[in-house]
Amino acid sequence: MAKITTRDKDYSQWYIDIVLNAKLADYAPVRGCMVIRPNGYAIWEKMQQALDGMFKETGHTNAYFPLFIPESFMTKEAEHVEGFSPECAVVTHGGGKELDEKLYVRPTSETIIWSMYKKWIQSYRDLPLLYNQWANVVRWEMRTRLFLRTTEFLWQEGHTAHETYEDAEAEAMRMIHVYQRFAEDYMAVPVIVGKKSDAEKFAGAVHTYCIEAMMQDNKALQAGTSHYLGQNFARAFDVTYQDRTGQQQFVYATSWGVSTRLVGALIMSHSDDQGLVVPPKLAPTHVVIIPIFRTDEEKQQVCDAAFTLKKEISAAGFRVDVDDRDQYKPGWKFNEYEMLGVPLRIEIGPRDLASGVCTIARRDTGEKTTLPLTEAAGKTGGLLDSIQNGLLEKAKKRLQEHLFVTDSYDQLVDIVTKEKGFAKSHWCGSPVCEAKVKDQTKATIRCIPFDEPEEAGSCVVCGGASSKRVIFSKAY
Amino acid sequence: MAKITTRDKDYSQWYIDIVLNAKLADYAPVRGCMVIRPNGYAIWEKMQQALDGMFKETGHTNAYFPLFIPESFMTKEAEHVEGFSPECAVVTHGGGKELDEKLYVRPTSETIIWSMYKKWIQSYRDLPLLYNQWANVVRWEMRTRLFLRTTEFLWQEGHTAHETYEDAEAEAMRMIHVYQRFAEDYMAVPVIVGKKSDAEKFAGAVHTYCIEAMMQDNKALQAGTSHYLGQNFARAFDVTYQDRTGQQQFVYATSWGVSTRLVGALIMSHSDDQGLVVPPKLAPTHVVIIPIFRTDEEKQQVCDAAFTLKKEISAAGFRVDVDDRDQYKPGWKFNEYEMLGVPLRIEIGPRDLASGVCTIARRDTGEKTTLPLTEAAGKTGGLLDSIQNGLLEKAKKRLQEHLFVTDSYDQLVDIVTKEKGFAKSHWCGSPVCEAKVKDQTKATIRCIPFDEPEEAGSCVVCGGASSKRVIFSKAY
Repeated sequence: MAKITTRDKDYSQWYIDIVLNAKLADYAPVRGCMVIRPNGYAIWEKMQQALDGMFKETGHTNAYFPLFIPESFMTKEAEHVEGFSPECAVVTHGGGKELDEKLYVRPTSETIIWSMYKKWIQSYRDLPLLYNQWANVVRWEMRTRLFLRTTEFLWQEGHTAHETYEDAEAEAMRMIHVYQRFAEDYMAVPVIVGKKSDAEKFAGAVHTYCIEAMMQDNKALQAGTSHYLGQNFARAFDVTYQDRTGQQQFVYATSWGVSTRLVGALIMSHSDDQGLVVPPKLAPTHVVIIPIFRTDEEKQQVCDAAFTLKKEISAAGFRVDVDDRDQYKPGWKFNEYEMLGVPLRIEIGPRDLASGVCTIARRDTGEKTTLPLTEAAGKTGGLLDSIQNGLLEKAKKRLQEHLFVTDSYDQLVDIVTKEKGFAKSHWCGSPVCEAKVKDQTKATIRCIPFDEPEEAGSCVVCGGASSKRVIFSKAY
Repeated sequence: MAKITTRDKDYSQWYIDIVLNAKLADYAPVRGCMVIRPNGYAIWEKMQQALDGMFKETGHTNAYFPLFIPESFMTKEAEHVEGFSPECAVVTHGGGKELDEKLYVRPTSETIIWSMYKKWIQSYRDLPLLYNQWANVVRWEMRTRLFLRTTEFLWQEGHTAHETYEDAEAEAMRMIHVYQRFAEDYMAVPVIVGKKSDAEKFAGAVHTYCIEAMMQDNKALQAGTSHYLGQNFARAFDVTYQDRTGQQQFVYATSWGVSTRLVGALIMSHSDDQGLVVPPKLAPTHVVIIPIFRTDEEKQQVCDAAFTLKKEISAAGFRVDVDDRDQYKPGWKFNEYEMLGVPLRIEIGPRDLASGVCTIARRDTGEKTTLPLTEAAGKTGGLLDSIQNGLLEKAKKRLQEHLFVTDSYDQLVDIVTKEKGFAKSHWCGSPVCEAKVKDQTKATIRCIPFDEPEEAGSCVVCGGASSKRVIFSKAY
């Protein structure tokens, strides 16, 4: 049984130990890339299902655009190319020949998609286009970390086209709230929703909305972004439409995405020194039943009971496995499923069976309850709900306890450099003040929170007028 | 309303007209690539769901491996590199610098996956590994055609590792039959299942199994392949395991895949001169309801009835839309949904409503039935089943009628060059005879069918001894 480093000792190593030992991912033999192993991919699949359902409920459909982007497209939107070009992988040869025009492996798909929207959009009747794509993208990263930052990653990218500023703005806002709902309801990760500063916004956006989560080491993780792109890409690709009054107008755009880094966020939010903890709504397996036996006769009896219970729990709508392998002892199995993060473990031994009971252990609290075998399936849903809610409440409490309101620059520096939490301070809006904090502490403005009230204050850096507090923190 | 070319006039143009007018896909601004539009992607999603369920039922799990393959990996298996290297797109620059080692964009993932299997497989206890990946791949094609042959395409690739020849062989066979079942039960496309000749097998396989379908122009389309790879990739990547007797052995492998070309196969199998025809099991929308009205008052009444019926059909478990748009006339809508291939169309007009009836039109036969509104939802399932079965039976009949048994070389040449159908003829097994047919007619041996009985015969080319007939045809 592999031991994992404790969070206290080395948080980074703890994270890597969980990813590797729970077999969520592995290092690939390609620089900065990872292999997503079945245990990790199963979580991503659950995320995809939930998100895809939410996108479709809000009127979106899926499509697929090419992996390759001609070099000339990348250069059409000035900020975009400046932001992404240095991160790109470039194909120079195809079919054994040098290409006339280099192809960029997509770091994001605005350019290729807007080149197509030009073909498809003529009139206001063609709008809105509410498309999403599930795809892989490549960004050449210097420092990589499994799930959180890899050269290739999987994501979804929504790309929408609208008649008016109002429609596009409403869409960008709608989708950041879809992400918020997903993070809180499925991942059990509370997030701060807000707007990025100009220095932190997407290259090519007018403005960027984001959800920011707090990891257990009190650092921030950007978990999703939604961009109002204005008419930037429509101008770059000359995408106009005839409006309701017969005039030609440039189309308004949004884009929004979340990626496999959410799996990293999930791990870092809930897991403990025993291994992975997964909220039930995203758990590939809800319940594992472990029959405990010494003799063949005992095995027969407890396994019969285990498989009967499996059927009942499965019929109640939950994903359940029985681990009846001979070659591993019960204690080893307990540790194994704690490592793998299965929310509920049910133990059945010969004496339990004689009394008609079983023991249910919760992965989140470790709490064990003995209850009649006949009640186990009926209690499963309630226990899973309790775990789901418990994880969210615990994470909310942690976020609240590590959110410090401060008006002192020294205190801000102390909070963010010692990674005590997020500092909520006034900021005048100047990129100079923002850069000063970053240079000195490596912390950035994570977001200007939506739900932060307007209040008169003085910039924590320069003392200038400020009307709102913002969140400063180091981030993944 | 766009008119589509008839099949009689120009089959190739008919196909392209359907793909473009039903908005299934469009040409991308990158050489040989396509954009899969929402209507086409929705069909691919239905295919994915069905296949993914079948893979999971047979014990497989999904994982994800990198897009990029180091050049040195590609060259490790001699036949593999010879087959794929000329087709590859090559990344030479990343993050603004020239790379030390070139990266190939995966044309298929055997090499990158087996480099990982080396890390994960030590003992027979680690076997079998039954992994599948949904991914994009790139093969630099000279002549491309939407869905059927594109430089980038979407697919799934299964990659399994086994202790013995028997296990791997059984897996390769299991999966070709999963593909057969999918083609027949979901796509309503009958297929001939068999083995490829050595000239046609996968580069790196010991042998390849395939399913071959017949399109409406009587040409063959390879719809899926399953490869027994023997120990070729295990040797290339030095993947050994300790067997049950304590000896080190090379691991046995399979791989198998189907791709977005199945969408092309679906279109070419069932569609007609009015547009797309989709079997109900893969149809994104099962039923479209078209209210017919002239006045606002009529609109109100028939739309009320239409939306009530929509609820009933939806509650019965079917995907249903109402098209109540004012700007298009009913006739236009009828044509539109025939183009889009929606299996059932329900019309409700004011006089229908007065009599409490509606008209249901089948997309496959064009047959119209008037029946009480109260019965429409209850009849939907039966009608859809009837369409699904009808399409399969029709396609089976067509296959049988165009499958010609011949012992004459001249007849074979006549059949395949005039594209009358498949020729089933004796073949001695010699690549020379196979090449002669290909050189003269462009037809290839599509497969050596499993269900073809052994019989003594003479090779249709050289007259040499043969024990089995094989299928000759031109192919997509």
